[in-house]
Amino acid sequence: MHFHVAIEITLRSSILDPQGKATSHALEQLGFDGIDDVRIGKFVELKLQASDADAAEAMATKACQKLLANEVMEDFAIRVTELETA
Amino acid sequence: MHFHVAIEITLRSSILDPQGKATSHALEQLGFDGIDDVRIGKFVELKLQASDADAAEAMATKACQKLLANEVMEDFAIRVTELETA
Repeated sequence: MHFHVAIEITLRSSILDPQGKATSHALEQLGFDGIDDVRIGKFVELKLQASDADAAEAMATKACQKLLANEVMEDFAIRVTELETA
Repeated sequence: MHFHVAIEITLRSSILDPQGKATSHALEQLGFDGIDDVRIGKFVELKLQASDADAAEAMATKACQKLLANEVMEDFAIRVTELETA
């Protein structure tokens, strides 16, 4: 079975995010009002084959732990969607 | 009202993604089997104040168009969640 896996990788809240701070200032300069905080993370999409959704999620979790995310500084959230087989 | 806005910014499918390709190869080298495609995007989280969820989404859309995303090459998806007021 084919799956689409969306992974949101975010800096842990205890870690400073200078890129987010700069973006926040830039939005303010552009006239945006009421923006309290901006945090920048990564978004990874995988297309993969697995026996079922649980196996797809397990594979994505392992990929995050081994390569995609730095668990010391980052959290990740995984969303699995089954794809229509072509 | 306070909102959390999650924005997934992805390269359009017609745009080559060398970072994704490199990641795909790296996963293969690590022994991951069955990964067909990897695409890397950005994930932006905003905390903002707006009168309602529609206004929050409108503000996020404008922020994407003006600063966060490059609409020539990128698509974005916005998810708005109301925050408990502290």
